[in-house]
Amino acid sequence: MPQKKGTKFIIGVDLGGTNIVVGSLSEDGGTEYAMRSEPTRANEGADAVVDRMVSMIDTVIAETISAGQTRDNCLGVGVGAPGPLDRERGIVITTPNLGWTNFPLRQVIADRVGLQATLDNDANCATLGEWWLGAARGGRNVVGMTIGTGIGGGLILEGRLYHGASDVAGEIGHMTIDVTGRRCGCGNYGCLEAYASGPSIAERAREALGGDQPSMLYEMVGSDLTRLTAAIVYDAAKRGDAVALEVVLETARFLGTGLANILNVYNPDVVVIAGGVTQAGDPLFIPLRREVRRRAFRPAVDACRIVPGSLPGTAGVVGAVATFKQQVLGTV
Amino acid sequence: MPQKKGTKFIIGVDLGGTNIVVGSLSEDGGTEYAMRSEPTRANEGADAVVDRMVSMIDTVIAETISAGQTRDNCLGVGVGAPGPLDRERGIVITTPNLGWTNFPLRQVIADRVGLQATLDNDANCATLGEWWLGAARGGRNVVGMTIGTGIGGGLILEGRLYHGASDVAGEIGHMTIDVTGRRCGCGNYGCLEAYASGPSIAERAREALGGDQPSMLYEMVGSDLTRLTAAIVYDAAKRGDAVALEVVLETARFLGTGLANILNVYNPDVVVIAGGVTQAGDPLFIPLRREVRRRAFRPAVDACRIVPGSLPGTAGVVGAVATFKQQVLGTV
Repeated sequence: MPQKKGTKFIIGVDLGGTNIVVGSLSEDGGTEYAMRSEPTRANEGADAVVDRMVSMIDTVIAETISAGQTRDNCLGVGVGAPGPLDRERGIVITTPNLGWTNFPLRQVIADRVGLQATLDNDANCATLGEWWLGAARGGRNVVGMTIGTGIGGGLILEGRLYHGASDVAGEIGHMTIDVTGRRCGCGNYGCLEAYASGPSIAERAREALGGDQPSMLYEMVGSDLTRLTAAIVYDAAKRGDAVALEVVLETARFLGTGLANILNVYNPDVVVIAGGVTQAGDPLFIPLRREVRRRAFRPAVDACRIVPGSLPGTAGVVGAVATFKQQVLGTV
Repeated sequence: MPQKKGTKFIIGVDLGGTNIVVGSLSEDGGTEYAMRSEPTRANEGADAVVDRMVSMIDTVIAETISAGQTRDNCLGVGVGAPGPLDRERGIVITTPNLGWTNFPLRQVIADRVGLQATLDNDANCATLGEWWLGAARGGRNVVGMTIGTGIGGGLILEGRLYHGASDVAGEIGHMTIDVTGRRCGCGNYGCLEAYASGPSIAERAREALGGDQPSMLYEMVGSDLTRLTAAIVYDAAKRGDAVALEVVLETARFLGTGLANILNVYNPDVVVIAGGVTQAGDPLFIPLRREVRRRAFRPAVDACRIVPGSLPGTAGVVGAVATFKQQVLGTV
């Protein structure tokens, strides 16, 4: 397909706990040339992960050229990776599931592919992606929440990604909603993530079954409750299972409590929720919005729309491209 | 005292639930010409409160002129008032304890004193005051928390006061820290304010006494526990009373939990705590910092200093002057 002369393009990389996704977009976001996804293999080691990222980038560049672009038009690579990061130095400080410590990911990628690279937090990228081309378009103060293995978050304040004093900003999943509550993987007690991440939802479903509640969930996992996942719970809830519906309703209450906190403190105009949890649909979103209304100040509730993300699977890549634009070109 | 020719000055007004404070500062904040405080009389009505504010402003202007200034050098009046506000239109939407509804305070003050006026939330003003001339000086991302009858908050992001989408931002006191917790005055359950405001601290102390714990608190209130206040609890704690020490320690834990949430989500470089609670001193601040360390991410903890305010009684006025500068002159 022939391109407008002079149209540049940017590569986005989303290094997630489940998938590595790499794609390329025109500078204005109007054209998606290529998008590839491969599962992240836990414990394959830093070198193997980098090799795979580089090979996926090469493939995406080749596909982009097949789509009528030229290599010279490639401005660079935006990378989104799990935190904590030292964004200024382009370093991944630690990623438990990839085994990285103080890994200079930005420089390594730039050297290996011969292009300028930027690095930002994956949850920040997902938020910026939804703001640039997805469900949060037009927002000025935007909170993104990505619910999967963990709960990540990103903040856009007055139209710019906000990183805070040491790149930690947006860790919404580690907001305490119950001061004496459940132990969280982070070591704290009562974090939102300990109630409403995918694994926490599955855990609460196992507890709700309690060994004696009739439920289709048993059948759906062949009576092996260790196979229970949040996705299976949403599916059972849609089919009317009482235990699953109760778990989804409680999830909505916990998430609604966390979001009410965000509304009262940050007063955003958009909250965009992404990740597997959006599959739960109305049985989650309706009580979630009700809980927020019940808990947050009216002017904050009235000013804010709470929406599911509209770029499932690709928000991270789109946002990685957008962070490249914001960091290198100064604007999205 | 003779002034540098051309030095302008600005009036600040802090309309609080307990006191009305009015003062005047040189434009650069280097000189305080006058500062007056009078108790706020509940239910005296909007007209009487406005009359008193205007009369205090007149007195402060006269004192400023006595100090060598001229009326022509007065740039205007910054007003801080309890929210919720419509800042753009200069309107106080509602203040339960003054009985105001949709009151155009900014215009009324401007008309009555014949000077340009601005309006902002009192907690925002207190935060900006501590940032401009107090304990939060030099911070870039600052959270102010004022603990008194309620718990108010203000956010400075990237060097500017942050208001959010509808002027609600910074309502830190109404962050849920216990999803099934105590009923709060706002109608919600488990708000930080329901545990750590002045009246909540007194209430928890009454519960801790439980009718049978030996404590000097009984004596300090002449056995009339309705007279118990947070200030009396701090005083007893300093004198070694076990019940009071326990209440202060728990207060530190609740406040530390709320602040850990703020650190994880907003990653500030300074948190400044103001209000009566700062009288509790080390018995509060030491366990509070410990609780924050225990709950928040290490890079967020390392990046942030948590300090008591250094402008007791006047932060609101100083900040009202600073908001006037930020709104009218574009810079502080």
